[in-house]
Amino acid sequence: MRTQSLRILISSARKFVNMGALSRLWNLMKNFHAADISSLMNHLVFREKRILFNVLFEKDKEKTGEVLSELDSEDAAQILKELQLEQISELFQIIPPDDVAPILDLLPDDMKESILAAMEEKPSEDVKELLLYEEETAGRIMSPDFYALDQKTNVSDAITAMQLEADVESAFYLYAIDEQNRLVGVVSLRQLLFAPPNTPLKNIMTKDVISVHPETDQEQVARNVADYNFVAIPVVDSEDKLIGVVTVDDVIDVIDKEATEDIYKMASLDTTDRIQDSPLKSMKKRLPFLMFSLLTASLAPFVVHYFEDTIKAFVTLAVFMPLVAALGGIAGNQTIAIVVREIAIGQADWISARKALLKEMLVGIGNGIIIGLILATISYLLMKNPYLGFILGLAIIANLFVAALLGTIIPLFLKLLRLDPALGSVNLLTMCTDTIGLLSFLGLGTLFLSKLI
Amino acid sequence: MRTQSLRILISSARKFVNMGALSRLWNLMKNFHAADISSLMNHLVFREKRILFNVLFEKDKEKTGEVLSELDSEDAAQILKELQLEQISELFQIIPPDDVAPILDLLPDDMKESILAAMEEKPSEDVKELLLYEEETAGRIMSPDFYALDQKTNVSDAITAMQLEADVESAFYLYAIDEQNRLVGVVSLRQLLFAPPNTPLKNIMTKDVISVHPETDQEQVARNVADYNFVAIPVVDSEDKLIGVVTVDDVIDVIDKEATEDIYKMASLDTTDRIQDSPLKSMKKRLPFLMFSLLTASLAPFVVHYFEDTIKAFVTLAVFMPLVAALGGIAGNQTIAIVVREIAIGQADWISARKALLKEMLVGIGNGIIIGLILATISYLLMKNPYLGFILGLAIIANLFVAALLGTIIPLFLKLLRLDPALGSVNLLTMCTDTIGLLSFLGLGTLFLSKLI
Repeated sequence: MRTQSLRILISSARKFVNMGALSRLWNLMKNFHAADISSLMNHLVFREKRILFNVLFEKDKEKTGEVLSELDSEDAAQILKELQLEQISELFQIIPPDDVAPILDLLPDDMKESILAAMEEKPSEDVKELLLYEEETAGRIMSPDFYALDQKTNVSDAITAMQLEADVESAFYLYAIDEQNRLVGVVSLRQLLFAPPNTPLKNIMTKDVISVHPETDQEQVARNVADYNFVAIPVVDSEDKLIGVVTVDDVIDVIDKEATEDIYKMASLDTTDRIQDSPLKSMKKRLPFLMFSLLTASLAPFVVHYFEDTIKAFVTLAVFMPLVAALGGIAGNQTIAIVVREIAIGQADWISARKALLKEMLVGIGNGIIIGLILATISYLLMKNPYLGFILGLAIIANLFVAALLGTIIPLFLKLLRLDPALGSVNLLTMCTDTIGLLSFLGLGTLFLSKLI
Repeated sequence: MRTQSLRILISSARKFVNMGALSRLWNLMKNFHAADISSLMNHLVFREKRILFNVLFEKDKEKTGEVLSELDSEDAAQILKELQLEQISELFQIIPPDDVAPILDLLPDDMKESILAAMEEKPSEDVKELLLYEEETAGRIMSPDFYALDQKTNVSDAITAMQLEADVESAFYLYAIDEQNRLVGVVSLRQLLFAPPNTPLKNIMTKDVISVHPETDQEQVARNVADYNFVAIPVVDSEDKLIGVVTVDDVIDVIDKEATEDIYKMASLDTTDRIQDSPLKSMKKRLPFLMFSLLTASLAPFVVHYFEDTIKAFVTLAVFMPLVAALGGIAGNQTIAIVVREIAIGQADWISARKALLKEMLVGIGNGIIIGLILATISYLLMKNPYLGFILGLAIIANLFVAALLGTIIPLFLKLLRLDPALGSVNLLTMCTDTIGLLSFLGLGTLFLSKLI
């Protein structure tokens, strides 16, 4: 939806909510897609959200379910906590199990049990099965509803059989299985539409189906779907039996989420921090990162402290300290961002590490020399002190070299330790560039102090 | 593909290329999906890429086309430059026009003309039409091949008509049009499969089709597809005539690309910088950002210079300068990242700006007070100087407040100026936090100098 129309929708919805004009609110809502209503809800305060949600629930359960599916799990859980048990289980039977699982997971344990018990058997079992798998795996985001028929079925029987099944909303493929229920092929609905009615599926199916396991990391699933241009990917168990399908809309959510997470982690943010969160909530989420930063940033003062006498003797050194630190930080960030991102999209790993390291080191030295020379020249022209220019230039070269070296090593090393390459790497790097940058600058300053004064 | 198997594929392919064992190379390749081959190519040097590409081209043009479609446009253009004109035009007739356009755009103008002239009329016209639209719009990424039939057609006639058309690879919908060729509805292939043969399309189609215009920004297109969970979105002209379809695989590419771009821009990187680029190429791409950083980082030294006498009198102030600057930078980055990302996914704009600003200011002050108090206490315990603790704490509070304020304003303001909110905002912010942080710290130091010494 365009910003313009969203703006109008928000202000009208707000007005109706606050006037208590609930039937006018519903008249406004009913023409909008569930995705639009969920965008709208992101702009409302909790009280307004709850009122709007209640109106939707009263008027159209189907649509309410769709809106719930589109909301952030945290938001959805917060709203549901205010509802009756029966109302929740009613909604959870409408929305797909892979959308239920993450919301349910955020509800209190006793509430969880009661909701599952209150739901009908089939949806309840489906949700329980998804919850068996760890978070952020294929098992958690797969849909247990799909079309699967024996490979010997012919096209017209297949179509009849599919029609008799419950509607599978986002089905684009029919999966072919053998007598042991193993996945052996896939037929697109387009192929099915155009094939002669008496053709057996095995004659038109694509063999060598690319599938994932329920334990596969959701990022890996997303990469597969993105690389192979699929709209869905089957999930099979250890015996090759088809147990679910991950659809492209869930893959897009994963890709969006992972990209946001990378950006947030690199910027020292909790991945659940949102602009709509209350100030107190965001404060709490950001404080641990600031404390960690306070820790990593506390190393540089010791270096400077060590050189207090030098600075006292030639205080101009203090003037250029922020510049040395800032340039090292920026150059290091460049390398970290490229390495973290290429790790995320699967282009960087220890296979290519040696090559990447060599390259980044060359880039660091090369740009270090250029920036160092420029800075040396400018500072010479301004301060008329050739030695100051010389040590400043040399410190920048050293700092940019270290920034490139550690900017490559830190995220790859974190990845090797099975830690998140994006998390904390900027802090660690800044700690190193600040320290080593100031160490080389002030160290050279001490060495050449007699020439500087 | 798993890292493990990719590693084996790379080393085998390398070996065969360097041994000149080209038929063994082909035997290895033919079992892999085009997407795997393109992942492999990302790990080869240019000479190896070219040899592999030539083998593919000789053995299987169809597969070569698919590989070409999967490659980065820059890589693809570089390889194609080495081929004959007829070979290029042959490949360009195989791959979809929306994949041809970005590659063609990177080739020299005279080559471009000759290739288009050498291609058959239909594909050549299709590509020329896409090139009419600006880069990064729906018009550039849409496919001109789709199924569209009159809404009065019945289901069985529709299926026959679709079968007679050239194969539309990634078609999941049939679009219904009226007598004026205007888009009036959409029917999924699943609906088509299950509907009685004599039903007219208009009875089963979904009306109120959500569509985009060819000028629509590709990010907006991607947001629409992601929000509404579509697998394709129709592109209509100003008269509502259907002119193309953007499919979800292209949308995923856009989402991936935009996320990478946001990360890169925030980290002062050119969006085309890749880990596989040569050191010289990356150096050239990063240098302008470092020059800009040199410029923005040059303000802080003037502030410090102004306070040289204070520092000379109480050199411990210099010790804490890096800490003040680092914490302001980290806190500012937190706010910038959240604001830039929420702008990107459409959750932040001037509508919500006032609320966001107030919130961030409260977070900045709140965490400023906490971190300021901790730091004041620690520095008091270490240095036994209550005034140093006091001015350090106060400077941190001021700096975190400024970081939050400007971290919100800078990206939103860049967006308002129709500039990129991610580009340069970190530099501008660091310039402000360094300057204002040091100004308040050294300013307070000067004010309380008599108490400090």
